[in-house]
Order: sequence, then structure tokens, then C-alpha cells
Amino acid sequence: MSELVTFGETMLRLTPPRGHRLSRVDNLDVHVGGAESNVAVGAANLGVEAAWMSLLPDTELGERIAYALRGEGVEPLVTWTDTGRVGTYYFERGGMPRGRDVVYDRDGAPIREATPESVAVDRVRDADVFFTTGITPALSDQLIETTASLLETASDAGATTAFDVNYREKLWTPAAARSTLSDLFPSVDVLFAAERDARDVLGFDGDPETVARDLADAYGFETVVITLGEEGALALHDGTATSRGTYPTDTVDPLGSGDAFASGFLAERLDGASITEALDYGAATAALKRTVEGDMARVSRDEVRALVENGGRTDIER
Amino acid sequence: MSELVTFGETMLRLTPPRGHRLSRVDNLDVHVGGAESNVAVGAANLGVEAAWMSLLPDTELGERIAYALRGEGVEPLVTWTDTGRVGTYYFERGGMPRGRDVVYDRDGAPIREATPESVAVDRVRDADVFFTTGITPALSDQLIETTASLLETASDAGATTAFDVNYREKLWTPAAARSTLSDLFPSVDVLFAAERDARDVLGFDGDPETVARDLADAYGFETVVITLGEEGALALHDGTATSRGTYPTDTVDPLGSGDAFASGFLAERLDGASITEALDYGAATAALKRTVEGDMARVSRDEVRALVENGGRTDIER
Amino acid sequence: MSELVTFGETMLRLTPPRGHRLSRVDNLDVHVGGAESNVAVGAANLGVEAAWMSLLPDTELGERIAYALRGEGVEPLVTWTDTGRVGTYYFERGGMPRGRDVVYDRDGAPIREATPESVAVDRVRDADVFFTTGITPALSDQLIETTASLLETASDAGATTAFDVNYREKLWTPAAARSTLSDLFPSVDVLFAAERDARDVLGFDGDPETVARDLADAYGFETVVITLGEEGALALHDGTATSRGTYPTDTVDPLGSGDAFASGFLAERLDGASITEALDYGAATAALKRTVEGDMARVSRDEVRALVENGGRTDIER
Amino acid sequence: MSELVTFGETMLRLTPPRGHRLSRVDNLDVHVGGAESNVAVGAANLGVEAAWMSLLPDTELGERIAYALRGEGVEPLVTWTDTGRVGTYYFERGGMPRGRDVVYDRDGAPIREATPESVAVDRVRDADVFFTTGITPALSDQLIETTASLLETASDAGATTAFDVNYREKLWTPAAARSTLSDLFPSVDVLFAAERDARDVLGFDGDPETVARDLADAYGFETVVITLGEEGALALHDGTATSRGTYPTDTVDPLGSGDAFASGFLAERLDGASITEALDYGAATAALKRTVEGDMARVSRDEVRALVENGGRTDIER
Amino acid sequence: MSELVTFGETMLRLTPPRGHRLSRVDNLDVHVGGAESNVAVGAANLGVEAAWMSLLPDTELGERIAYALRGEGVEPLVTWTDTGRVGTYYFERGGMPRGRDVVYDRDGAPIREATPESVAVDRVRDADVFFTTGITPALSDQLIETTASLLETASDAGATTAFDVNYREKLWTPAAARSTLSDLFPSVDVLFAAERDARDVLGFDGDPETVARDLADAYGFETVVITLGEEGALALHDGTATSRGTYPTDTVDPLGSGDAFASGFLAERLDGASITEALDYGAATAALKRTVEGDMARVSRDEVRALVENGGRTDIER
Amino acid sequence: MSELVTFGETMLRLTPPRGHRLSRVDNLDVHVGGAESNVAVGAANLGVEAAWMSLLPDTELGERIAYALRGEGVEPLVTWTDTGRVGTYYFERGGMPRGRDVVYDRDGAPIREATPESVAVDRVRDADVFFTTGITPALSDQLIETTASLLETASDAGATTAFDVNYREKLWTPAAARSTLSDLFPSVDVLFAAERDARDVLGFDGDPETVARDLADAYGFETVVITLGEEGALALHDGTATSRGTYPTDTVDPLGSGDAFASGFLAERLDGASITEALDYGAATAALKRTVEGDMARVSRDEVRALVENGGRTDIER
Repeated sequence: MSELVTFGETMLRLTPPRGHRLSRVDNLDVHVGGAESNVAVGAANLGVEAAWMSLLPDTELGERIAYALRGEGVEPLVTWTDTGRVGTYYFERGGMPRGRDVVYDRDGAPIREATPESVAVDRVRDADVFFTTGITPALSDQLIETTASLLETASDAGATTAFDVNYREKLWTPAAARSTLSDLFPSVDVLFAAERDARDVLGFDGDPETVARDLADAYGFETVVITLGEEGALALHDGTATSRGTYPTDTVDPLGSGDAFASGFLAERLDGASITEALDYGAATAALKRTVEGDMARVSRDEVRALVENGGRTDIER
Repeated sequence: MSELVTFGETMLRLTPPRGHRLSRVDNLDVHVGGAESNVAVGAANLGVEAAWMSLLPDTELGERIAYALRGEGVEPLVTWTDTGRVGTYYFERGGMPRGRDVVYDRDGAPIREATPESVAVDRVRDADVFFTTGITPALSDQLIETTASLLETASDAGATTAFDVNYREKLWTPAAARSTLSDLFPSVDVLFAAERDARDVLGFDGDPETVARDLADAYGFETVVITLGEEGALALHDGTATSRGTYPTDTVDPLGSGDAFASGFLAERLDGASITEALDYGAATAALKRTVEGDMARVSRDEVRALVENGGRTDIER
Repeated sequence: MSELVTFGETMLRLTPPRGHRLSRVDNLDVHVGGAESNVAVGAANLGVEAAWMSLLPDTELGERIAYALRGEGVEPLVTWTDTGRVGTYYFERGGMPRGRDVVYDRDGAPIREATPESVAVDRVRDADVFFTTGITPALSDQLIETTASLLETASDAGATTAFDVNYREKLWTPAAARSTLSDLFPSVDVLFAAERDARDVLGFDGDPETVARDLADAYGFETVVITLGEEGALALHDGTATSRGTYPTDTVDPLGSGDAFASGFLAERLDGASITEALDYGAATAALKRTVEGDMARVSRDEVRALVENGGRTDIER
Repeated sequence: MSELVTFGETMLRLTPPRGHRLSRVDNLDVHVGGAESNVAVGAANLGVEAAWMSLLPDTELGERIAYALRGEGVEPLVTWTDTGRVGTYYFERGGMPRGRDVVYDRDGAPIREATPESVAVDRVRDADVFFTTGITPALSDQLIETTASLLETASDAGATTAFDVNYREKLWTPAAARSTLSDLFPSVDVLFAAERDARDVLGFDGDPETVARDLADAYGFETVVITLGEEGALALHDGTATSRGTYPTDTVDPLGSGDAFASGFLAERLDGASITEALDYGAATAALKRTVEGDMARVSRDEVRALVENGGRTDIER
Repeated sequence: MSELVTFGETMLRLTPPRGHRLSRVDNLDVHVGGAESNVAVGAANLGVEAAWMSLLPDTELGERIAYALRGEGVEPLVTWTDTGRVGTYYFERGGMPRGRDVVYDRDGAPIREATPESVAVDRVRDADVFFTTGITPALSDQLIETTASLLETASDAGATTAFDVNYREKLWTPAAARSTLSDLFPSVDVLFAAERDARDVLGFDGDPETVARDLADAYGFETVVITLGEEGALALHDGTATSRGTYPTDTVDPLGSGDAFASGFLAERLDGASITEALDYGAATAALKRTVEGDMARVSRDEVRALVENGGRTDIER
Repeated sequence: MSELVTFGETMLRLTPPRGHRLSRVDNLDVHVGGAESNVAVGAANLGVEAAWMSLLPDTELGERIAYALRGEGVEPLVTWTDTGRVGTYYFERGGMPRGRDVVYDRDGAPIREATPESVAVDRVRDADVFFTTGITPALSDQLIETTASLLETASDAGATTAFDVNYREKLWTPAAARSTLSDLFPSVDVLFAAERDARDVLGFDGDPETVARDLADAYGFETVVITLGEEGALALHDGTATSRGTYPTDTVDPLGSGDAFASGFLAERLDGASITEALDYGAATAALKRTVEGDMARVSRDEVRALVENGGRTDIER
């Protein structure tokens, strides 16, 4: 059994060297990224027993993804398929005033055909926490059904279900997202939502606490975490709202920092910590991740703890 | 107008460093390759005015391909589309006794929907030589129609039409290929075929000269070039068969050497050379290309000429 | 015909990795740069039909430059020579408080011998805009004559002539520059001058508007653009002065940003835009260029437009 | 439980780029290597459930090793220590006529203090095969004891015990090795020995079959495999001697090919194959490994099978 | 004879690429660093005749260090040994809010056994300045003796002796350091101490001037330099205290900037400059060093002078 | 004093990555090379006290050369100039059947103006061996005079004078070379000449021994060494001819192997070895150099000795 099981698509991220343009690129760094596997990796590096569940084509590129996750200590619960491709995305870093430039090339991944029968549903039942995001049901109608089924399975089995809204405008409209997510939310215990998604997608306005309370009232979440970008995050739990800030960072790679936040929060909660501590650990994990290349939080619990305790940078000498 | 116009799909080739495996790769070299653009590039570097015709999605990756071809002196006659993706293929070099390992990821390229109306058909009419390969009609039913139409257009306009069989077993069966190509061949003047494709796909057995004669008899080709791998090539033209060998090479990158051969042969023929000279130039262009990274023959006419004339390596000092 | 034709020297720029010193360097990045080709490249990437006119030695290094420009969509109008060398310059990036360190090695380039007869003067006649800079006449006495002749030819043919003062103290004294430029200015319609050059070289003091008015009065320019570094730029046209600021940037590579400004300004003017819009496009093109490695503005019109319209960073997802 | 458990030291290998010298090096590739973990990795990549048992200091460098093995699918059974260092070795590739140049820097690794109590001895008991090499007892007196104890434990528990002589002259003398190994051999079922080690260290002369028979007679091995370099290998099992050759290779990295051989042989035996098949799989695994950078056999069972069945290079297209 | 002779340990520094973690590293940059050799290198690059005295094992790695120092113009006075290893340290850059992470691996270096007889003591006698730091006696009891002996030798011979406290908590306790250093100080003329070390290790509290005066009173130093991080430094000499600030820097590599300061200060003093000038040159050398990769101050006297004179960044064009 | 002093031009060599073309290059490796400094470096690495005498412009590029030589243990006797440039050459490796492609860009180096007064002529007088090559007088008329003067100075002072013909057709005609060299030869003790140069430039035909005897007779050389490419070399000394072969090599970088041969031969002669031994050491040094990147023989005396004694590859483990 694993403490944390996540379910979702993972892709290869292909990135030009800093200051180089995709339209002129001669060389691409390869990273492995996906919201749900990022959360599993972040949690594993913080000491959680974590598994990630998905479908991958049985090619060297599918194996590339499994290799990356195994290395980080995540058990890949992969159903290997004869068809389909590994989704990729090309990510060109921006730099003031040039924005980032992303070319998604994710059609055709086998997870889009995933049924509950085609994945390791037993592992969902045995998990302490089951986590997925709004990206997964956005990928296909089949995945709406499967996501719903897995959330229910986990919930019925007594697992905590955690869900990050993670709205992606390339994948669906706000209206479609709201309609689908509303159906899924009754099976969700812990909700993560960016304030912007809460407003623009889910339709909840107001100050962060109001948004959290309205969301909790509407869907019966046990915990609602509203992330506020550089302002930090607010969590509502047991009727109490708690706000915590972020740590100033020199960002090397921004991708995956939301996932790092969720992994830090969940890892700390699994460890029995308070909501306040969990928010701090989430913020620290996210800040440290931003200093590291790649989508994955290659950050240790010692580092997170040192940052939370010292409130700032800690040099390590061994 | 251009002396040579080619038509076909061009992809990004992603290649790990030598001795590294795709399943473990952290970094990929980016090359641009496609049989028809390779032939245009080879010819352009040999001094031919060359253009390449295709459809590309209007993204940084599409522009990456146009950029590469422009740089090599090929005019990209691109119809930019709002949909579709840039095809890619992952190429892991082998090394005795490990074979090469290729993962094709080419579905969804917009050229598959190309109609004669969607491309610069006027430029086909104005060309001296129009070139395409068996890969193009193998990509979609639409492309069978379009290829047929373009070959006819070129032929009717008085251009020489050249065609390389280039059978790809990932794309279609020998039977399907034979049936389709048989319909196209009547519009083809110059045929390039690997001996193996002539036998296994087109069904022509026997020694190379017999194969060439039987092909010419069957379809009325003006010129038939049978390539024999390391054995060289045999050309049948005006009823006369001519055989020429290859140059020993230390291969750095084998991809595109068949295309380099075709480009050298055609460039020399466009220049008014004899079949013998054209075979030698083709062989020299192919040999030199194999010493260079990437699918494209970045080889100058001076280098090819020096190799043909000296029959071996020539140092250049300026 | 081309909308924009530029004339000048282009060199290879050799740059050590960030944080490395030329005096210890093991590896050099190769870029291609020259004020006039940079302007052509910037304009071409913004959609202008652009050509660059020069002389290059017929070597692999000369071809390296032509290759770079072709790739960016600029037509290289090159007169190939049997003698002379490709100019180079070694550029070591600085970093507060270490300044940049440049070793110029540009003697011997064949453009120094260029006569009007040795270049594609017909293309100058057919251009909408002809552009060169003060670097060109600074290179040799012959080039003073040739520059004068080309400006007159363009002017006589009805092209707009644009000129950037671009004073280089390594090439000539302020007095020599002032004397030569004064002779050329009567043939110039659009003048770009850094405030410092206007003052220290041309001898025009005062606030930017005064400088612009005095310059226009003295030489009869149609448009005068005074660039003010981080303060932006002021343009005087039809008797009206317009000032626009810059965009904050995280600079990756500062070289060529003045050229990028000129290319954005000219591209927008060619497109019929107002002086205000042209200043904004110039500033945006320059700001975006600074985020990209190399001297050339590898920046698209979409990106420039998004920056001008949003006034700040825009992420792109496709 | 794991099918294969190995026990030994694993180090970081630091290697200059090809053609560069250690005494001038600016950049080192990092690989992870150790005979026993190499065998576990090779077997895991061939489909065996494999674990590696060792002690590592609880530093980023220790984690670097665990990360590498996890990625390859090997379970690291690591006892983390507060003291000691990660052994390293600097490996400069040779090239005819320059030999390889290795600087070992392996003193101080915590495994030298390993007692049976400090490692996961239960996992040894549960294994199908327990494997170690002569390097392990050569590292310290404590490790002689511990190796003996683990071999006995495995043997008593019914596991097959496999042992590769792997004599290292930097670590001990032939006399010391012979004396120690003679004491360990009674607990060993399957012995791998290079012909040279059998002769110079163990003192068994004659043709390979004689050596194998004499060794089997002397120590009661179930299987003896004598490796003969490019000549292949001879195995004696159930009184029958079987010889098989090698595959010609273009070697990219020779290190770890002996370990790859052992992993292929053991993986195939675990799968129920005959001695002949096991020798072929060992040879194929070793040959393929030599084409890949690093000490580890990143080679799949499909590739090994294709090589054994075709007797030569097989291209793969997907 | 050399103007400056330094004595101490020098190591290889192994550093992952920016944004990469040691625990996942595939590639390490190699730098050479050691406080005393850094000071010699900085001084040599500023024009001082400098030598560095130490013991190194006679391996490629020992030669790697000598090569680096020779290149920088420092004469390596190396006693080559048959035993011992080259110390290394792995340095992972931090980035707000992640601290730097250093894994020291320096045990076993032969300098720990250095006696006065085993080094080039004659060269100490002939030097104008003899320099070492508190790291040296911290390495072994033998080195306490040897350091004492060399300081006395230098002092007796009339050389200026300079000493940087450079406390390293990995090597000894504050109490041990204070006790040992107190014994050495009577032979020291010029003391460098970070304010923090003066307080926490040497036990001198108060404002910097008080600390300097108390230190001078306690041990009879001719010059005391208290470094204050970003606040600059204060020097007490001939009873007069002088304070100077630092230059703002964009730091590329912080390691060795304290050593760069000492080298600039000493080089300027050797050149006859005033304390004020020496502080400025020290600050400028340190600031420039921070913009360069590696521990060594690859900074010329021209650059330092330009910074001191202009008070800011100076571009250089040649 | 130095045992060996050499005099000549040294350049920066700029080389694209393997398989890349100069005309498309994005990145250049920087090496330092020149026949006379190569010989000094080779000898220094073999244990000879060596110095190299030349003129360099006082720029970062001049310092780059001095840095390289200092690192290798060669004392740079540089006269720094305010004018002139550092010569460069672009070297594109070939690969069967593509030849190497070299673009020389060496005009303007200050050594061309060297007079005997502008160099450290005292050091020539103090040398045991003074070495230069035919490249030096080929560079300018001034250098013919200066070379003659230095050879006479050395000869008069009792040094052995050694000279390598090193004919370069880019620099002068065979007739000019023969005329100039004939005037220099009377001051030369040891002549190195490639068989081809002896024949085509100096006009001496026949088998190698005849050529050597005729040369010795004509000019009174003490020793004549005729190099025969892969056939080895023949030396005539004291009337006795000795022939020795070469070692088979896998060549990584062929440049500088002739210089490596001369350095090995001279180092061994300086050490008192016989002509036979010197030829073997020369051949071994050249063979080892070919396995290393760059023009310089980074090869130790231990390695050369091991190769000569074992007649083949020797692995080193420490």
C-alpha cells in the first residue's frame, strides 16, 4: 500500500536553453512533468510513500517517464499500451518583458482511454490519500467517468480525496469545467483552487475567505485551500480560516510550483501537522522547487523544515 | 521559378547524445528532416535553385522547420495552418551490435489534409524538376490524390518528374504501396528505388539491370536508378545500364544519405551531366553527407567535385 | 524588389559562456552581428521583405554569415570575394560591477573596398527604405564614397533613406565622424542618433527636443529619432516631437538592441503606422531582443504587438 | 521479496569528455558504478526483481547513488550512516595506443564497517539468488566476515549463491585473495571467474574446461563460468562444459561489461533457461552494454533477445 | 625569490550546473580552490610574483591542481607524495531561498602530514610576504606545528606575515581555534578576520574599530583588517582606523571572494599603497571576482584600477 | 636558463564540434597551437625545462595564449605589443571521405615585425637547444632576418639548433622556401623534414637514407630526421642511419603530431638517449598526442616510456 496515490497524465517537457527561441532551437532539455506525478514526486522526496497511476505507451518514451518517477522514489503504477503516444510540451522560458511560450502537443496519450478497469484500482482503495486534478477530466469524456469513479472508490474506501482545480483553458471552457467539476466535488475532501480559477471557472467571488467558505458550503469539502500567487494561500478547515504567505525566491524554473505546494501541504497533513504548518510547508516546498530546474520538487524534508523554521535561506555543509 | 520543387512532410528529429538511450535521455539534439526537403537542401547546397512545398502549423515548431530550410537556401513554400501538429521522430543512434531505435511520432501533421488547391501548384508548373517520394502518398488517402494530381500537373507542364520509392513499413503494407505507386508511376520520369523495395514492394526480381529494365518496360520511366547500398547504384537510361560504386565512409550520421544521393544525381542532371557523372555525384554527395550530423546534405559542389575527381579525401586550406 | 535594403559590414561575434573570461576561454558561442544586418533581420522577423548588401570572402566563414541571414528571412545580396577575411569580435559579457570587454578583430573585411559598382545597386534603387549606419563610412575612405553614392542613388530613386549615427570610437574620431556625416546627411530622410552621439559627435546640445529640432533644421531630415537609453526615445516629424518610454527588461544579451529599435520603428512606419506607434514598436522590439541570445532580434510581430498592447509580459500557449 | 539480491560497494565514477585528460579536465560526467549494483541493474532491466544492499553516508552523494539505482528499477536496501564518504573513481578513457587511466579514491566508504546486523539480512534469506564479488571481501577484514556470513545465510535459506571473483590488484594481493576466497567458496553455488584470475589468483591452470572442472572439483560449485574476454565464455554445469562466443562490438564504454555478462546469465537462469541460452544472453547483454555510456547495462530483454536470435544488429522502429 | 608565498591545502571543487541538485547530478564543473592558493592567484593576476607551497599526491588529480595554478601565473612549490588523496568538495549553488549545499570530502590530503622539512622553507625565507589562513592549522596537529614554524621562519627572515582567520566549523571548535590561533598570532603582522569570527571564535566583541584595537593590543599586529560582509572592511594600522565600503555586484560565484579581497589588499600594499587604497583594491578585486565562475580571482590590475577610479562599471573595447 | 627555447607564432585554433560544419557552426572549441610552442609544450610535459619566445598583442586573446603555455609548464617569453592581432585558424575536422577544412586567419600577428632586439635573445644564448621551424621565416621578410640572427646567436653560444622544415604552401612557394632555408641551414644542427618536403621543397630525391645523407652532405647537419608519415622516421647521425616505425593509433586529433614527434625526440636527446631511443620516444609521443584533443602533447614521460617499453597500450590504475 502507498500513503499517497495520484492519477493523471504525465508528459515530456522539452525546453530550449535559456535565452534561446523554440523557432531557432538546436537542443532541448528533457524534463518529465504532470501535475499529478509532480505531486507524487514532491511528496516522495518529503518522505511520503507515493505512487502514480497512469497509462503509457510501451515505448522508450513511456519508459523515460517511468524511469524518472522511479528515480524520485515514486512507484509508477503504469498500464502499458500498444497504442497511443507520449504527450509532449515545448516550453520556452520567458524573461521580462517576454512571456513564456508553450506549445502543447499532448493529443493521443493513452490515458485518455483509461477506464477504472484499466488501472490499479486496488491501490486507490488502499491509499491514505488519493489525489488528482482538473486536468485529468479535461482530457476526455472517458476520463470524466473514470475520474469520478476513482474518486468515489477512494472515498468509499475511506481514503482522503484531494483535488486541485488546475484549470487549463487549452483543454476546456470555464463552463464545461464548472459543470464537470461540480459533479466530482461531492467526492472530494480537500480542494486546492487558485483564487482566479475559483472566480473565473467555479464562479465564486469575494475575498479569499469568503470564497473558501462558499466553496465549502456548496460542496461539503473538509478542507479548502485557496492559493493567491505571491500573496500566499488561505486554508479553511473545521470552520477556521488560516492565511500564510510565501517565501521570496529567485526563480529558476516556475513550472510545477503549484504542484510542489500541494505536495508539501499534503505530506505535512499526512504527517499529522496542523493546517498552519501544512500551509508553511507547502509554501516552502514551492519556493525551493522554483530554484531547481524541472517540474519536479527535488527538495528534501530537511530543506523544507530548515526554511520554515529559519524563515529564510539556510546553507548546508556536510 | 525554381529549378527544383519538392513536395512532402518534414519533421523535427530529436536525437540523444551518442551512447545515450532514449529511455534515459536528458537532452535532445534537434534536426530537421524529411526526404523531400532533404533532397531540396542537398540540391540547393550544390547550387540548384530549390523550393520545398508543404503545410505546417503556424507555431514556433513550424517556423523552426521553415527557418532551417531557408538557412540552407531552400525556399519554403509553406501553407500555414491553424490546426495540426509538427511531426517528430526520436532517433537513437545504434552502434554495433545495437541497432538504431526510432520512435515515430508523426500523426497529425497538416500535410495529410493537403489538396492541390492548398499548395503552391503554380510553382510546380514552373519547375524544371518536381520531386516527391513514396512517403507522401503513404501518409493519407488525401495525399494519394494530391500526389497524383501534382505529378500530373508537373508532367503536363513539361517538368521532369522524379520519384523515390522510399518504402516505409510503418506507414503502409507492401501491397498497398505497390497498388498506389503503380497508379502514380505513369506520371513519373525518373524513378529511384532501393533494390530491396523494387523486389519486396514493387515485385521486381532479378539482377539490378533486369529489375531496372523490367521497371522501365512496365511503367515507361525515362530513367530508373536502382540503389544497392554499399554496392553503389545502377541507372538505366536510353536503354543503357550504368553501374557506379560508393565511397568508403566513416559514418557520423547515416540518416538522409539516400536523399543526398538523389539530390546529387538530380543536381548534376539539371546541370546537363551524363548519367555516369550523375551517379558519381550522387554517391559522393551521399558519402560526404554521412560525415555530417543531421539529415541534410550540408555539402558544397566544390567538395563533391573534389571527391569525384580525386576519388578520395581532399583537404582544403584557405 | 525588397521593402528594406541595408548596407554594411557583418561579423562573427565570439562569446564565452556566462561568467567565463576571454583570457581563459575554452569555448565560444558563435553569433552573427552587424548593425545593418541586424536591422534587416529585425525587420524581416516583423514581416518586412528585407535584404542586406555587402561583400564577403568566399569561405566557410563568409557562408556562415549568409546562412544566418537567410535563415532569418533576409536576402543576402553578397558580392563574394577571393581576398579579405571575415571580421570577428570577441565579446565578453560583463556583470555588475564588471563591464563588458570587447576585442574587435575586424580589419581586412572586403567591404572596405566596396565600390558602388561592386554591389547590387539596382536593389537599392528598387527599395522602399535604404538603411545604413555611421559604422560603414567609418571603415574606409572608399566606403565614405560608396555610402554617399548609395544614399544618393536611393534618394534619387525615391526610396526613404534611413541612417543611424552609431558612433564607434575605435573606428574614428568625433571630428572625423562629424565631418563625414555632415556630408552624408543631406541625402538622409530619417536619422537615428543616440543623445550622446548627437552631443559628443555631431555637436548638438540641449534637451532632446532641441537637439532633434536643431538637427532637422541643420540637415533637412524628414524624421529625427533621438534615443535616450532607458529613458526611451523622442522623435521629431512634421514639426511635432513625440516621446515614448521603454519597457523594463531582464537583459540576457544587450547587443543589437539599438538595431532592434530601428528595425521595429522602420517596420511599423513601412506599415503605415504613426510616429507614436513606431516608437512603441521600436521600444518593444528592443526590449524583447534583450531577452534573447545574440545580436539579432528574433522576435515576431505578434510578440511585439502583444507587448505594446498589454504594456507588459504576455504568456503564449498554443 | 526479490528474486535477486546483491551486496557490495557502489561508487561515483567521474569521467572527462572523450579525448580530454584528467590532469587538464574542466568537466566530469557522473556515472554510478559498482560490480554488484551493476549486476542488479542489468538484471532489473532484463525483467528480474532486483535489490542491492549496502551502506551509504546520508549525504546528497549517497542519495545520488540510491537515485540512480531506483531509476533503473533496483530496490536500494541502504543502511544510511552518519560517517564515511562516498567512494569515487576518476576514469579517463584510453584510445589506441593510450591505455585507460583510473584514479581510485574509494577509501572511507561506510560499507567497510558493514556487519551482518547492519544490513537487511532478511532480504538475503528471501532471495532466489544472492550475488556478490571478490571486491567486497577485499575492502576490509570486517567485510570478509560479513561476506562469509551473508553467503552462508543465503545458502542456508535455500537461495542460489553466485560469486564473481573480480580480482582487483589495487585492493589485495593474489595470495590474500586466494586465501580468503577459498574460505568463501564452499558457500557459493555459481562461480564466475575470468580465466586470468582463475590462473593468477586462484592458481588453476590449463585449458578453460580443465580450469572449470578443477575448480568445481575443488570447491563443489554447482556451476562454474570461465570468461575468456573476446573468446567468449565456458560454463561447466552438471558435468557438461558449454562454450559460447561473443558479439563484435563498437565499444563506447567498456566498464561494467563483465557485470552485464553476469546479469544476463543470471537473469536467463532465473527464467529457467539452459546454460547455453544463459551464456548467449550474458554475451549479448555485455555486447549491448558496451555501446552505452556508463557502467550500467541499460539494455532491455527485447534487445538482448533480438541480438541472440538474429545473431547481429537489429534496428527497431515504433 | 617570490614577493608572495602562501601555504595551505588546495582542493578540486566539483559543481553541478546552475539549478541542478547534487543528488541528481550528471555533470560536474571542475574548479580548483583553496584559500591560500586563491590569494596567490589573485595577487599573481594583479601583477605580484606569487608562489604557493603545499603537498600533493603524484597523480593526475594532483597535477590538475598544479596545472591550474601555473596557468594563473603562480609558481607551485609542490612536494609530490606517493600516498594520500586530493581533497575535493562538492558545491551546489543556492538561490533564494535555497542555501548553498557543500559536501566536503577533504580527508586524506598529504598536506596534513607536512613538516617544515617537507616543504620549500627557503622560499618562505626569501618572500616579502608569507600568507596562510586558519584553515591550515585546523587540518591536523602536525599542521599546527608546521604553520607555527613557517610563520616564525618568515618572521625571523624579515618577511611580512599575513594571516586570515577563516574559521571553518567543520574542522574544529571555536575553543580549539582560539587556543591554537592565539599561539600563532605573535608571529603574525597582518591579520584578516571576519567580524563574526573575531567575535564568535576569538572572543572580541564591540564595534569593528574596538575589535580591531583590542586585537592589535592583545597580539601586537601591525595591521588588523576586519571584514564586514556587504558593509565593507575596517583596517587598523599605525593606530589609525580606516573604513571602506564594497561595490554592488551581481554575483555569479561567491566562493573565494574573501580570498580575492586579501589578494587585492596585499598586492596593493606590496606595491606601496596606503591602507585606504589597499582596502579599495581589496573590495574591487572581491567584487570583480564574484562576477566570474570559480574560486580564483581572474581579474586584472587594469580592471581593478578602473573600478576603483570610476567607482563603477567600466566597459573595455580594444 | 631553459634547456629548450623555441621561437615562433602561436595562434588560437577554433574548432566546431565533431560532425559539424564551419559554415553552420554555433560553437567553437578554443585550442592554442603553433609548431614551436607545441614543441615546447610537448618537451615540458616530458620533463624538459622549456620556454617559448614570441610577440603577442596585449589583449585578452594574447593573454589566452600565455595562459595556456604557462599551464603546460612552458615559460612564455612574450614581448607584449600595442598593435597587431592574435592569429587564428578555423579547423574543421574531416572524416573519410571528407578532408579537413582549414581557414587560416593569421595576418597581422605582431611576431611578423620581430627583430632580434625585440625578443629575449639572452635566453636563446643560455639554452641547451634552440628550436624553430620553417613557418617562422615564411611569415615575413623581417622574420627571415630575425630567424637567421637567432639561429646564429644560438649556434655561436654553443646551443644545439634544431629546425623543422614544416613547409606551408599557404605562406610561400617551394622555390622561396628552398632559397631562404638554404641560407638558414648552415646554422642548424638537427634538421627535421617530412620526406615530401625534402623532395618537393628542398629538392632532395631518393630513398629516405639517401635523402638524409644528401642533406647532411649539402648543409653539414649533425643530425637529419626524415619523417615518413605512417612509415615512421629515419635518422642519420654520425654517419649511421636508423629507422623506426610508428604506433597504431585511433586518432582523435591529428594536429600537432609532427610537433609532438620533435618534442619527444629532442627531450630524449637532451636526456642523453641514443638516436634509436629518441626516434621511439618521438613516435610514442606523437601517437599518444593523436589520442588527445588539441594541438599540444599533453602526454607524460611515464606514458611515453610505458608505450615504448611495452610496445602497446598500457592501462594505468592508481
